[in-house]
Amino acid sequence: MTQPRPMIDDTLNAFCKDTDAYLEGAANGPLSGLTFAAKDIFDVAGHVTGGGNPDWKATHQPAGKTAWVVQVLVDAGATMVGKTLTDELTRGIFGENAHYGTPVNPNAPGRVPGGSSSGSASAVAGGLVDFALGSDTGGSVRVPASFCGLYGLRPTHGRIPLDGILIQAPSYDTIGWFARDPETFARVGQILLQNSIVPARPTRLVIAEDAFEVADKEVADALQPVVDVIASLIGASTTERLSPAGLSGWPGQQQVLQGREAWETARDWLDRTNPRFSFEVTERYVTSRAISDEEVQAATAAKAEVVERMKQVLSGDTVVCLPTTASPAPPTGQRMSARSEIRQRNSSLCCIAGTTGGPQINLPLAQVDELPVGLSLLGPPGSDEALIGLAREVATAMPS
Amino acid sequence: MTQPRPMIDDTLNAFCKDTDAYLEGAANGPLSGLTFAAKDIFDVAGHVTGGGNPDWKATHQPAGKTAWVVQVLVDAGATMVGKTLTDELTRGIFGENAHYGTPVNPNAPGRVPGGSSSGSASAVAGGLVDFALGSDTGGSVRVPASFCGLYGLRPTHGRIPLDGILIQAPSYDTIGWFARDPETFARVGQILLQNSIVPARPTRLVIAEDAFEVADKEVADALQPVVDVIASLIGASTTERLSPAGLSGWPGQQQVLQGREAWETARDWLDRTNPRFSFEVTERYVTSRAISDEEVQAATAAKAEVVERMKQVLSGDTVVCLPTTASPAPPTGQRMSARSEIRQRNSSLCCIAGTTGGPQINLPLAQVDELPVGLSLLGPPGSDEALIGLAREVATAMPS
Repeated sequence: MTQPRPMIDDTLNAFCKDTDAYLEGAANGPLSGLTFAAKDIFDVAGHVTGGGNPDWKATHQPAGKTAWVVQVLVDAGATMVGKTLTDELTRGIFGENAHYGTPVNPNAPGRVPGGSSSGSASAVAGGLVDFALGSDTGGSVRVPASFCGLYGLRPTHGRIPLDGILIQAPSYDTIGWFARDPETFARVGQILLQNSIVPARPTRLVIAEDAFEVADKEVADALQPVVDVIASLIGASTTERLSPAGLSGWPGQQQVLQGREAWETARDWLDRTNPRFSFEVTERYVTSRAISDEEVQAATAAKAEVVERMKQVLSGDTVVCLPTTASPAPPTGQRMSARSEIRQRNSSLCCIAGTTGGPQINLPLAQVDELPVGLSLLGPPGSDEALIGLAREVATAMPS
Repeated sequence: MTQPRPMIDDTLNAFCKDTDAYLEGAANGPLSGLTFAAKDIFDVAGHVTGGGNPDWKATHQPAGKTAWVVQVLVDAGATMVGKTLTDELTRGIFGENAHYGTPVNPNAPGRVPGGSSSGSASAVAGGLVDFALGSDTGGSVRVPASFCGLYGLRPTHGRIPLDGILIQAPSYDTIGWFARDPETFARVGQILLQNSIVPARPTRLVIAEDAFEVADKEVADALQPVVDVIASLIGASTTERLSPAGLSGWPGQQQVLQGREAWETARDWLDRTNPRFSFEVTERYVTSRAISDEEVQAATAAKAEVVERMKQVLSGDTVVCLPTTASPAPPTGQRMSARSEIRQRNSSLCCIAGTTGGPQINLPLAQVDELPVGLSLLGPPGSDEALIGLAREVATAMPS
């Protein structure tokens, strides 16, 4: 830890320039030889966690203790080479930070990397590190994984301890990670999940018809060969509509419940600090503040219905497949209004695992016009290892 | 104009550091020998108008032409020595800029200077210039004049051309100025109003009882001796309530109408830019965006009632006196929530001239605990010269 930090040639604007956090991995661990980066919401002892916002950074002290996830990886031999850019306080899914710029999406030039775990996805996609830590509250691992062409997991909520991370909305916050290949992804998963990843094949595949309808036609078409491989691996597959009334009705309840929590989490600091945010981020807090108790009550009921419905869908040993995002990464620098529709469609897809609390993994196995777009496998809470194992099998089974 | 800019020893953080705009005054003009500063919303040819926001500055080109008001002052002999800090896009009345800091209030250490014409008020109060240009949409000259202890006028709406300034809400925007003494104030006024300032004494004074009730008790008490001097100068005075139902009901209509215009003015740029604002500024735009056409309709009717009532009050040759602000300058660095009540009370006082379109001048002739607090004279539209002339008389008549 006292060694000089090796220089990273960060041509991607993936890393935070204002911290030299660096933790040398333990010798002879299962991850020795691997390097990783951590989104700048993870505490590293002695360094201020910046959260993608200069006023957050200026009003906080250096962390006293390193986040559990970071420490467990370092103890397992992986070397943390730096911290990465994030959307402000994790509130964004496109990865454009108004203060620190936009990390490059190496696999989709001129396109956003996706957020909020933007720098982590960029650094892995660009080969600057072997893997990277992100977090996923409303899609912040899954979306950049899809946009950058990476393996990325939103784990079962509560599965990986949140100690030492910047909280957005605790009922929805999860810690995930990215890797370029399923083997590395699984090696890291064994440490973070504290369990082995063994080959696991569910007995039934549900192809989420309404989720594919949310995506662009080109995306659905591009994902079909991956779906076919999974279907033939598993054997039994059915096409079902997750929500008879339409998936567009599902994200509202999460937006209300997550928004209320995000407001309660931040309100005192906001009031004290009057921080500089991009317009969109303040807008989100102002909208969250206006949520009424009646809306929370209605959303709680709506959430229970989604949870119940997804329990039915996932009964038995079932896995669901769906597009991770509705489209490939949009261009950088778009107008706010030009993105509201794509954000809403992505929320329709991302809210499912957010609401059930179950895991969802992105498989980076398709492209539209040479732009990455991912297929997701979604399982019941606790099926993290099974999804990672299945992802590894699918990758192997794909025609090259 | 090609001479090197003389150094200003800006110990007050009143001036913009990122522009060297400087215009030498014409020789032998009526204002020759005087120096002034202009809030960074006034165009100076060849320089980008910054508007108190780095993203505004970064997305705009240098001005092609100097604002009419600036040019007329320079042509009259005054030298513009620099541009001054403003609240972001003029949307604030306290003068704390999250990007560029808070200009010092030389007459109230540790207190805000008031905004949005913060740097102009600070520079004049601190003696860095003889006078300075500001703008007043909802109080942005009157409030800093009161907080810093300066003469400051919101002129009749439409009286001074708005050409070449950053617009907030055109039905409410006005250009005003600050000076430490009423003589200088009047000399500048003759140029900006293109008319001479002659001694003028209205025949009737209305002491706005409900406006004094809006102010802190200590403020009302401190202003009483000034009121007494004016009353004795004018002879006839009556105490009246401006709004039988309470002044707190008056600012809402301006907030709606001004807010709607401010949103319409900025919306395209906001959508394109997703700019970094302090929380409060975005919050204001988001609130403005939510204003419905029905609210605009109701506010238009309410505005007409205020205008009608104030026509009655000001009938004959009448001037109204009222506290300019409800309190002296609050401390710097307060929580947002700690200020919402004082902002609302100041709006109750400032909305009167904002709504009638008439002029209002601050007389810096009182203090509370050694902090400046001003009395205002408010007249019907067109009475600018009369108010300035009366202010000069009042100053002379004050016991020293």
